[in-house]
Amino acid sequence: MRQQWARCIDEVWALMAEIGRQTSTPAPGITRPAFGEAEQRAMEAVTSYAEAQGLNVERDGFGNHHILLPGADASLPAVAAGSHLDSVPNGGNFDGLGGAVAALAVVAAVRASGTRTRHPLRVVLMRGEESPWFGTAYLGSRLMLGRSPFSEIGALVRRDSGRTFADHLRALGYEPGTGLKLTASDFACFFELHIEQGPLLIGAGAPVGIATASRGNIRFPDARCRGAYGHSAALPRAYRQDAVLAVAELALVLDAFWVGRIATDDDNFVATIGQFTTDRDQHAMTKVAGDVAFTINLGATDPATLAAARSVLTDAVARIERERRVSFELGAEVGTAPVPFDAHLMDLLARSAAESGIRSLRMPTVGHDAAMFALSGVPAVVLLVRNQNGSHNPDETMELTDFAAGVSVLAGAMLKAAA
Amino acid sequence: MRQQWARCIDEVWALMAEIGRQTSTPAPGITRPAFGEAEQRAMEAVTSYAEAQGLNVERDGFGNHHILLPGADASLPAVAAGSHLDSVPNGGNFDGLGGAVAALAVVAAVRASGTRTRHPLRVVLMRGEESPWFGTAYLGSRLMLGRSPFSEIGALVRRDSGRTFADHLRALGYEPGTGLKLTASDFACFFELHIEQGPLLIGAGAPVGIATASRGNIRFPDARCRGAYGHSAALPRAYRQDAVLAVAELALVLDAFWVGRIATDDDNFVATIGQFTTDRDQHAMTKVAGDVAFTINLGATDPATLAAARSVLTDAVARIERERRVSFELGAEVGTAPVPFDAHLMDLLARSAAESGIRSLRMPTVGHDAAMFALSGVPAVVLLVRNQNGSHNPDETMELTDFAAGVSVLAGAMLKAAA
Repeated sequence: MRQQWARCIDEVWALMAEIGRQTSTPAPGITRPAFGEAEQRAMEAVTSYAEAQGLNVERDGFGNHHILLPGADASLPAVAAGSHLDSVPNGGNFDGLGGAVAALAVVAAVRASGTRTRHPLRVVLMRGEESPWFGTAYLGSRLMLGRSPFSEIGALVRRDSGRTFADHLRALGYEPGTGLKLTASDFACFFELHIEQGPLLIGAGAPVGIATASRGNIRFPDARCRGAYGHSAALPRAYRQDAVLAVAELALVLDAFWVGRIATDDDNFVATIGQFTTDRDQHAMTKVAGDVAFTINLGATDPATLAAARSVLTDAVARIERERRVSFELGAEVGTAPVPFDAHLMDLLARSAAESGIRSLRMPTVGHDAAMFALSGVPAVVLLVRNQNGSHNPDETMELTDFAAGVSVLAGAMLKAAA
Repeated sequence: MRQQWARCIDEVWALMAEIGRQTSTPAPGITRPAFGEAEQRAMEAVTSYAEAQGLNVERDGFGNHHILLPGADASLPAVAAGSHLDSVPNGGNFDGLGGAVAALAVVAAVRASGTRTRHPLRVVLMRGEESPWFGTAYLGSRLMLGRSPFSEIGALVRRDSGRTFADHLRALGYEPGTGLKLTASDFACFFELHIEQGPLLIGAGAPVGIATASRGNIRFPDARCRGAYGHSAALPRAYRQDAVLAVAELALVLDAFWVGRIATDDDNFVATIGQFTTDRDQHAMTKVAGDVAFTINLGATDPATLAAARSVLTDAVARIERERRVSFELGAEVGTAPVPFDAHLMDLLARSAAESGIRSLRMPTVGHDAAMFALSGVPAVVLLVRNQNGSHNPDETMELTDFAAGVSVLAGAMLKAAA
């Protein structure tokens, strides 16, 4: 059996590299837009590998692909694992894809070794997890689990293409209402292996992390601050309505709130102003900026922290509007509640790691498809894999030995859950 | 004579409106690029009006046009006035053009009324005063006064067209080294009427302002801050290299310095971060920003204030680089020294205003072609005209009565100087 594991891990590792090559462009990093052609090429490559392993691949009406390995008791729900195949713009090859092929490696190796579990095992290959494309996350898992109706989501517009989600989905040959239909009750539990998206495991010298919770967030993808353009030298400060200074101050208020949390040994909060742009058709070195477009992304595992951050944000907006004579239009708010993961599954992962002599660390993580399973009542957990450069950037990387350690810990926990 | 004044003021006011119409585009406001076609149309329209008034127009090799009205003593240098015909992108119709046609109105009315001054009077119609086009200001006046050699300036590239200054100049039919040649010794003094670029005159209820000095500046048109892209939720604060927060902090340090000057009743300083943009090909709501392009524009009438601001800037850059793990590349620095204006000319303007019963206010102003005359040893001054919305924006406006008051004060002072 050890030989089958080594072969499957090596093969899916090579498969990832091949998919990375197939979905590369001259732009930095990897860009696999949600429900786009590059994501589709990745899906087809993973599907082909599964079929070559003698596994049967089923499609649902939302573009997700599924693989079921029967267990001894067909009446039991499946022990499942998987992840997503899209990436952020100019991201890396491992965020999502790593967890998808890890789940496949486990199921392929179990099949090849002739092991028979009590529960069936299931691989779920999902799509559209990253939010930059349609302005909202988890499209594939939300639709599959019935958490969002297609009638609402279908009209979302992809920001790069200007086409609707429904258009993109149908162009790939999928039709909502057709294909495999699953509900939460089809899943006994759900594991998601995922590249760690920060540097904590490197710092701790641990190959894997066991996620305790998925951070919730409060997001404003289309915030604006409107002031007034004016002469950069002739306009006295008391008359200025400077949108750059207003948004700069708001950003630093949120950063100061974060510093305050850290000072009380609380590591559950994060804040990011990822986009901050004056209007290139109007701005100039010699003009006070009258308009800034920006984004706000606040995260926390503790709902009370998110609520406190929202209050700080609201107060700061009102004060800065008054003091700097500008107006903020934060725009539509999107976001998710924090999701705690399943304590029993965390223990299974910890035991599996300990049995393999692999050091693990418990830590919070960010939003993943696993959170959609947890919110749907399916016990879920995320296993994080150590890496050098984080994710959502072109330098994303991972060592084969760490990936193999992750697959080993995942397999051990899945087999315990399916026993 | 009063009739001639009223006619000339009304005619140049209508001429400005006509030029505004001729140089309008569907974009907001007025855009007359330096040494471009719209500036040339404005120059031709003003030149045609001058010739229709029986005035002789001469051209120099740098695109400036000149009108000489002889005085009683041909051995004396000219009492001159004028301004520029270009605008900033999406600016207004009055910044520059107002002063050009005001000078022309004075000389046309003096000629029409048969008044004979002792000194000759001269109108100077200049070009390329605004910095956004070639990244540096005062091209026409600097070349005319020999303050910059064409061999250096000719290679500057206009940012919108990608073509050199030499190309643009020659495409308009001018050739350096040909045409009228003037030096500082040809000017007894220089007056520049200019739309006020801020709201102080409105606030003070004064139709005109007498500028005490032109603010110097320290400018960085192409500053960058480089951090590192990272996951917006998974990257702990201690690992972040957030370029947005770094530039936000730098902007607020400069704003705090300004607040400090105001607190000591010092109104000579200004600071503006007019451009602040994350990279639209790389940024995302879900990424820590790794790169920000921005501009810095610091101004002061007091050289000691500029030096103090530079020191604050340098210290802040070093501290923020260290604390936020980013690197700043401020890029090429451009700028000018503060220029005090001539006290005797200020007095002539004040007396002229008082004699006409027009309220005036002494105040600092920004950079103008007049500063190039002052730096060349020609006594110079700027007369500011009240207006509602400042300048360098599409809403620039001016009341005819205020413009007429400005021309009247200008004429009175020029006639005193030329007596």
